[in-house]
Amino acid sequence: MNSPADVGRDKPGPYGSPTLVADAGERAIVDRIRARIPAAPAEVLVGIGDDAAVVRPDRGALQVFTTDALVEGIHFDRRYSSPADIGYKAIAVNVSDVAAMGATPRVALLSLMLPDLLALSAIDSLVDGLLEMAAEARVAVVGGNITRSPGPLVVDVSIAGSVRPRKILRRSAGSPGDALYVSGTIGAAAAGLAWLQTDEARTGDAPDAAMDACVRRYQRPEPRTRLGAVLGRTRAAAACIDLSDGLADGVSRIAAESRTGAAILADALPIHPGARDWFSRSGDPVTASLEGGDDYELLFSVPKRSRGQLRGAIREARGLAVTRIGELTSDPAVRLVRDGREEPLPRGFVHF
Amino acid sequence: MNSPADVGRDKPGPYGSPTLVADAGERAIVDRIRARIPAAPAEVLVGIGDDAAVVRPDRGALQVFTTDALVEGIHFDRRYSSPADIGYKAIAVNVSDVAAMGATPRVALLSLMLPDLLALSAIDSLVDGLLEMAAEARVAVVGGNITRSPGPLVVDVSIAGSVRPRKILRRSAGSPGDALYVSGTIGAAAAGLAWLQTDEARTGDAPDAAMDACVRRYQRPEPRTRLGAVLGRTRAAAACIDLSDGLADGVSRIAAESRTGAAILADALPIHPGARDWFSRSGDPVTASLEGGDDYELLFSVPKRSRGQLRGAIREARGLAVTRIGELTSDPAVRLVRDGREEPLPRGFVHF
Repeated sequence: MNSPADVGRDKPGPYGSPTLVADAGERAIVDRIRARIPAAPAEVLVGIGDDAAVVRPDRGALQVFTTDALVEGIHFDRRYSSPADIGYKAIAVNVSDVAAMGATPRVALLSLMLPDLLALSAIDSLVDGLLEMAAEARVAVVGGNITRSPGPLVVDVSIAGSVRPRKILRRSAGSPGDALYVSGTIGAAAAGLAWLQTDEARTGDAPDAAMDACVRRYQRPEPRTRLGAVLGRTRAAAACIDLSDGLADGVSRIAAESRTGAAILADALPIHPGARDWFSRSGDPVTASLEGGDDYELLFSVPKRSRGQLRGAIREARGLAVTRIGELTSDPAVRLVRDGREEPLPRGFVHF
Repeated sequence: MNSPADVGRDKPGPYGSPTLVADAGERAIVDRIRARIPAAPAEVLVGIGDDAAVVRPDRGALQVFTTDALVEGIHFDRRYSSPADIGYKAIAVNVSDVAAMGATPRVALLSLMLPDLLALSAIDSLVDGLLEMAAEARVAVVGGNITRSPGPLVVDVSIAGSVRPRKILRRSAGSPGDALYVSGTIGAAAAGLAWLQTDEARTGDAPDAAMDACVRRYQRPEPRTRLGAVLGRTRAAAACIDLSDGLADGVSRIAAESRTGAAILADALPIHPGARDWFSRSGDPVTASLEGGDDYELLFSVPKRSRGQLRGAIREARGLAVTRIGELTSDPAVRLVRDGREEPLPRGFVHF
């Protein structure tokens, strides 16, 4: 094991190449990560470096917990996402889950599994990307764990948040007749990934502006932190879910958990212009955008009685569009209405 | 993706072999795991199956968070640990970290990365082992995440616990003159692993009773949940750490964080009889037991003024031995005193 002083300087390795995980020790890497993390807020009584972190809870709030991992070869490819993008996204996908509960994220634990041949400078970039998203979402990184990986790079994040009692947005809280809304646009991340996998991207061609926005959405999703908290606080939404696995999957899950069906209007879908353009070349942009994962928008149901609260919530969401795309039904089928005809909603995106 | 009904029955795969992760889908595996997890206690308002779990906090308590991963090829080998052992240990190592803060564990998140060729029945066993330890420590599994792994099997657990204000045991709270105590015995897990790696173990020979206890300790460590909580509540201990990476590492870390040195008495070390016997064959049992990882005992410092509280804590610990092994010193060196001579304490166990 090298001393922290040896490794911290990121001097070249034995062959003039970057210093690798294999050249360093656990403590040196932990020290290197700790040095990048800003001072914890006052409610963090014990941060990184002890057996566990200790945090003062929000008074009167319930605790919210979620965990989500990004695994190399399953969720990302280092050819398509920079280390900073991977770190950013690892926090974003967890923040998105907290937002979908109507809750506010507070602290994160970071569990890293590091291949021997990863450069220490890549870990620095990963942590910087992660801290950028954490700062945007006002999340403090309070602890974690690092280990070597004999296989893929893994970034596993757990987030704890808080929510007021009776403000929780459950997937199961929808009812027949509720309108279904989705935030932002859909399909962009899937189109961005599809473009990254083309020959033109691999040979270094630049995407046009619309596709560039799609690529950016894939690499750095924007969790709807504010909207989620506002939907919970105002009680504008009943059921809510984030679109990690696509809109079709989200609709199916809310319907299944709420014991309803759903009808989605194809013409109403807020398909990202870049995704509509891209998917039109090879097939049906509606199906592709419904199936595409990684959007991290919020899908939520709004009872008739809550429409006033919804207008207030939209004002508070500061310019983020929300679009009515259909409704929950007492008929248990989950349908897509297109050109006046009904068809089954496509299946969601399958990472697995 | 198969339906849950297809997979849940664990029927043979296409070649009469066990059903594998590759044969199943994410939802089916999640459903299968959920079916094994007992009903959550009343303070869990939203458990597995939503975007995040929601838990009612202990009133007046601080929150404690920790995460620790077991990675195949780094922390375990499927030849030496059964799936149930791996699950058991994944909870135990996290519970141990919470105990070392003087805190009580409450809820766990389970993040599983599953190789395609893992049998679903192995996941069942892993979850059962995990739930066995969770029940012993009174921890509710409230959520998690599963994903495929293109490499090793990974079991990453995060635990949230609670601790009363002013009862936290920090690594940095030691002072020169504090006595150092360790719970239970040391060296057993390292001896058990060393035995498992021998030819005699691989050819199926049974260990003798002392070595069998060592093997068991390696496979199923016993976190000192009760002792940790009692040490915190009674204020018997000042600094505390759990021995995941061995006693030498633990002493060095407490001394470094407390800005003291330490003197450890070789004759006082509570080396497990099986470990003493095993390590005597090939070398020095004192060094091997100091360096051996995976003991998960607690090492803690006791100021002179707290000796009365320590006697009370020992009574409450219900028969778990604690042994005085040395003290923290104002001299910054970390030393081992053996046969009247001083030598540097060996380095700790290095997983990395």
